[in-house]
Amino acid sequence: MVYSVAVAGASGYAGGELLRLLAAHPELEVATVTAHSRAGEPLVNVHPHLRSLSHLGLMETSAERLAGHDVVFLALPHGHSAELAEQLGEDTLVIDCGADHRLEDPQDWVDYYGTEAVPAWPYGMPELETADGKQRRSLRSANRIAVPGCNATAVTLAMIPGIEAGLVDTQHIVATLAVGPSGAGRTAKTNLLAAELMGNARPYSVAGHRHIPEIKQNWRTVTDAEIGLTMTPVLVPMSRGILATVVAPLAEGVAAERVDSIWRGAFDGEDFVTVLPKGQVPQVSDVVGSNQALIGVAVDERAGTVIAMCAIDNLGKGTAGAAVQSANIALGLDEHLGLSADGIAP
Amino acid sequence: MVYSVAVAGASGYAGGELLRLLAAHPELEVATVTAHSRAGEPLVNVHPHLRSLSHLGLMETSAERLAGHDVVFLALPHGHSAELAEQLGEDTLVIDCGADHRLEDPQDWVDYYGTEAVPAWPYGMPELETADGKQRRSLRSANRIAVPGCNATAVTLAMIPGIEAGLVDTQHIVATLAVGPSGAGRTAKTNLLAAELMGNARPYSVAGHRHIPEIKQNWRTVTDAEIGLTMTPVLVPMSRGILATVVAPLAEGVAAERVDSIWRGAFDGEDFVTVLPKGQVPQVSDVVGSNQALIGVAVDERAGTVIAMCAIDNLGKGTAGAAVQSANIALGLDEHLGLSADGIAP
Amino acid sequence: MVYSVAVAGASGYAGGELLRLLAAHPELEVATVTAHSRAGEPLVNVHPHLRSLSHLGLMETSAERLAGHDVVFLALPHGHSAELAEQLGEDTLVIDCGADHRLEDPQDWVDYYGTEAVPAWPYGMPELETADGKQRRSLRSANRIAVPGCNATAVTLAMIPGIEAGLVDTQHIVATLAVGPSGAGRTAKTNLLAAELMGNARPYSVAGHRHIPEIKQNWRTVTDAEIGLTMTPVLVPMSRGILATVVAPLAEGVAAERVDSIWRGAFDGEDFVTVLPKGQVPQVSDVVGSNQALIGVAVDERAGTVIAMCAIDNLGKGTAGAAVQSANIALGLDEHLGLSADGIAP
Amino acid sequence: MVYSVAVAGASGYAGGELLRLLAAHPELEVATVTAHSRAGEPLVNVHPHLRSLSHLGLMETSAERLAGHDVVFLALPHGHSAELAEQLGEDTLVIDCGADHRLEDPQDWVDYYGTEAVPAWPYGMPELETADGKQRRSLRSANRIAVPGCNATAVTLAMIPGIEAGLVDTQHIVATLAVGPSGAGRTAKTNLLAAELMGNARPYSVAGHRHIPEIKQNWRTVTDAEIGLTMTPVLVPMSRGILATVVAPLAEGVAAERVDSIWRGAFDGEDFVTVLPKGQVPQVSDVVGSNQALIGVAVDERAGTVIAMCAIDNLGKGTAGAAVQSANIALGLDEHLGLSADGIAP
Repeated sequence: MVYSVAVAGASGYAGGELLRLLAAHPELEVATVTAHSRAGEPLVNVHPHLRSLSHLGLMETSAERLAGHDVVFLALPHGHSAELAEQLGEDTLVIDCGADHRLEDPQDWVDYYGTEAVPAWPYGMPELETADGKQRRSLRSANRIAVPGCNATAVTLAMIPGIEAGLVDTQHIVATLAVGPSGAGRTAKTNLLAAELMGNARPYSVAGHRHIPEIKQNWRTVTDAEIGLTMTPVLVPMSRGILATVVAPLAEGVAAERVDSIWRGAFDGEDFVTVLPKGQVPQVSDVVGSNQALIGVAVDERAGTVIAMCAIDNLGKGTAGAAVQSANIALGLDEHLGLSADGIAP
Repeated sequence: MVYSVAVAGASGYAGGELLRLLAAHPELEVATVTAHSRAGEPLVNVHPHLRSLSHLGLMETSAERLAGHDVVFLALPHGHSAELAEQLGEDTLVIDCGADHRLEDPQDWVDYYGTEAVPAWPYGMPELETADGKQRRSLRSANRIAVPGCNATAVTLAMIPGIEAGLVDTQHIVATLAVGPSGAGRTAKTNLLAAELMGNARPYSVAGHRHIPEIKQNWRTVTDAEIGLTMTPVLVPMSRGILATVVAPLAEGVAAERVDSIWRGAFDGEDFVTVLPKGQVPQVSDVVGSNQALIGVAVDERAGTVIAMCAIDNLGKGTAGAAVQSANIALGLDEHLGLSADGIAP
Repeated sequence: MVYSVAVAGASGYAGGELLRLLAAHPELEVATVTAHSRAGEPLVNVHPHLRSLSHLGLMETSAERLAGHDVVFLALPHGHSAELAEQLGEDTLVIDCGADHRLEDPQDWVDYYGTEAVPAWPYGMPELETADGKQRRSLRSANRIAVPGCNATAVTLAMIPGIEAGLVDTQHIVATLAVGPSGAGRTAKTNLLAAELMGNARPYSVAGHRHIPEIKQNWRTVTDAEIGLTMTPVLVPMSRGILATVVAPLAEGVAAERVDSIWRGAFDGEDFVTVLPKGQVPQVSDVVGSNQALIGVAVDERAGTVIAMCAIDNLGKGTAGAAVQSANIALGLDEHLGLSADGIAP
Repeated sequence: MVYSVAVAGASGYAGGELLRLLAAHPELEVATVTAHSRAGEPLVNVHPHLRSLSHLGLMETSAERLAGHDVVFLALPHGHSAELAEQLGEDTLVIDCGADHRLEDPQDWVDYYGTEAVPAWPYGMPELETADGKQRRSLRSANRIAVPGCNATAVTLAMIPGIEAGLVDTQHIVATLAVGPSGAGRTAKTNLLAAELMGNARPYSVAGHRHIPEIKQNWRTVTDAEIGLTMTPVLVPMSRGILATVVAPLAEGVAAERVDSIWRGAFDGEDFVTVLPKGQVPQVSDVVGSNQALIGVAVDERAGTVIAMCAIDNLGKGTAGAAVQSANIALGLDEHLGLSADGIAP
């Protein structure tokens, strides 16, 4: 059986990557693509790399256009999904790549987004350890799924093994990320111009990045301890990718030797989250185009800290890959369909 | 009066940047350039951007070649400067861009470099606060100067105001740096190939970077507290530049309001270290080609931390700029000669 | 039926891309990977992006190791394939990604490579128009195939429609190419360092590029006219990709209106060579990771010239994609298996 | 004596580079900076790399603001300079970095810009050979100067020696340029986003670039022959720089040996236009930040063509450097003041 799919917000980077993955997916077939400012144009004019979808044209985004598909992917700016989703039936699987439905505590939403919160949906990170086992379980019966934030994915996965096992002190965790500009979207802004970013590295959202409450929420599924997280993303000149470096104090009395085995055990059996052998580090070029999260971990014995690093493609495992993986699970398909564990390098 | 200058190790990136600065310096004149594998070639073949030095040819590095100049800059791999310097007279100012003479505690050298230590020289970071005032004082009478490491410069300067003023807890400081590959030198290595690094971000020297003891040594000049430093450099695709993000817990009982004023006061009157107004962040493109260190500071009140960021050009303020600035001081010249506070952007 | 495959020279960029494609190919299965300096290592250490091939280890390249497979891909420096191929049976399909077997005139080889020529093999460019129809016909019965050069592919395809139709004067064709450094291989060379190439553009092989005789040979299949070709590749800072701009005088008496229709007709029905609508230009980011050649054509009426542009991924349609496509044809499989017409952008 | 200077359009890239040069110029002092949308802001907010000009604030552009300075540099979009200049006195030196006053034939302007032409001003390319000797002569008494286009500078200089000496056939000249995006300005456009351009190469203005009539006009100063020029700029991922590859047929009966000496002789004595020794090629990284034009020339004997390559910094010798150099000449200053023949590399 082939499921019919609509993608809303198809003209942006997340929408484009979704379509690239869906074009090669054996069980999902893109029937409808919608956008706003570029509605009316052939899709291939907006995404000239998607030759195999040359038959599609962008239509105006509306609930009517999206209705009647088995699966609807929303790749819209936050604030737009709740109203659309309400108008789509319960039998439509809706996957939101935006932030609206990620946070369970409405106060977090108010604090970081400044608008009124809408209800949380099941969280599309299958490999996330929770109190009830891996998160993929709660996706199996879902008809609404919130795709995690890209930076949140990298930081969450990097350190969660140590938090769950009680190896690290959670009160002073520091995450610093090298991030490519495609995560900032396709809207023209001066500070995202090629001339401004090539040869440059620039921090942004210092001390207040919106993925902070999402990461804490993820970690709280495995610990009751208080969590302090300082997170600084740094924009660097690579189109795609995130390299998160997450540092936490080794908890008192914990032997450094346990770190490697705990990390490797945490994602045992997962094909899309891989912990590298001791001494190896993840790098962005190993995951570009893939649905892979590569994790490396080291102990700094002099400083008494654990350094956990995670590389993902922000548009892959960070957005569109997670969306397709979650859709596969919700539809009862093989979780791997349409996704690659291999990156494109160099 | 014009001083005659020799540059050893002139074929590398640090040597090239030294020569670029010296070519425009009104009081220093390059008379001799030496190298090893490329000795015998015209300098302009090795550094085709240095048209104004087309008259110079590379000679083999030796104490004889270097002797007889007023100033000798050494831009050699570590391990080579001590023996050369011994053969140069006391009346020659020797500025070593390598690591050999930076560390005061021989055990630090043994721990991080694994060879026998040689004596420390006055440390070429004029703006460094010490127990006896700014470090520039100790450079005034110097005839031997050790240029700081580039990563050490960025991390040291970023956080020292808070350490000196007791605003931060020094036991768990985390520094993560976005670093360009020119700092790794000009020797051909597969992992530094353009095809490997473009579109990529890759951590290196995880948990054991050699600038760690140097940074701690710098900070110890202003505190007696124990220092824990976790430092992770991440190679990113920009030729030059360092963006250091340094995070420390705000010390107990310290009001966040003091942070901004303490940081700004720490470098008051300095032209080559600038603290940005509250809310602004430094970026690499603002300092490329300059001798400027740009610092931004923020408080994360939720996490209870101070985030200090510093952007420098690793070859500028990080190496060759600091070398020229130190030479100016030691020779009694205007400290600014041949140096620019302005970067080249975009 | 699944065919067993060996890849020789698996540690380089062409080898890596072959393996990436083969890992996802439904009918070809990689059984053996060989290399030279890195023999003995796990493949994933050398290509950490190829997680799905983590079970493979690199062995030393030898005819014995390669024997017994249905298909052998050679991704070796030129000069190594003839001897190996002789030792592989007639029933083994050998696909050479190197230059050795491309040139039909031994004198061309001597002129451009300076060594003794070996016999030409069927040329793996299925879409090439020849006197006997498309080149794919001659691949159907082949057990030896020479994969075209990457720059040759872009230049050949860009202008061949006009040459075949007699629309252009072939005596003064000028091809200038923006080329990424992965085409230069993975061997460490100073002039390929990231610090040397980022922010840079540098011509190479001026007036004597080795793909010149190959391009002329391709064009001679459709014209008897004398061909003059000036070709200048310019290395630019993108890991992958070629953007060829090929200019030729519009032949006397030819109406400009015919250009667009002739070009579009030339590749009618081809899925991996696409001529863009009038007014559109191809770009590298539309073809990265794909087996697509995107062509745009324009007439400069004032100058009296045709400007034909072609974008390909040098490792994709330029090497590994062409190799897999040719293998599919030779094995009687669907030509599209394991290949994508879609690129990865941004 | 120090001349007072105003810069209009100071918020863009050309304006920023002008200010960077002027900040270090010993005889010119920036008194006024004007802009449009960012008027009212401190200059350093708009150009945070220009720390030494922190005392300046952007004012609204108007003739009143610009009046009363010795020199006014205009870095405005085309169409704005004529009206402003009319209101500035004859005793003010006005240097226009825009296109308005470059073309002598009004029809050229109409053909390529589509609006009404304004009178041409003396052309600010001092090294241009004309029928009356070098162009710098006509700048000595000028109070209005039109700065050449950046692409026009590279293409003009590359081939003019051969055209003047009659070595090449001018009817079929082909220029293809690798160009960085800073030449396209600082206005936010989707196709100039970092995510769109990194890893990409994209032709633009195919068959109709506006610098074509300007280049022909330059070449016509040294030849009466008909000129055919096909020019294709290709946007590549480097912030600054142009690498022009210009190919022309070697004229009938001309010996290839003459090429090298003619080219080298053409710019004898010029410090800012350098012809490289035979066999060397210019590259962008050798000229970034400089006022240097580096030229290499080769003969392709098989194809019967001359290949002339020129590297410049589009913002340096291509715009702001040429503007300052021309101002120096018009003011009777040393032509080199405030300019560097050396680039910044790597």
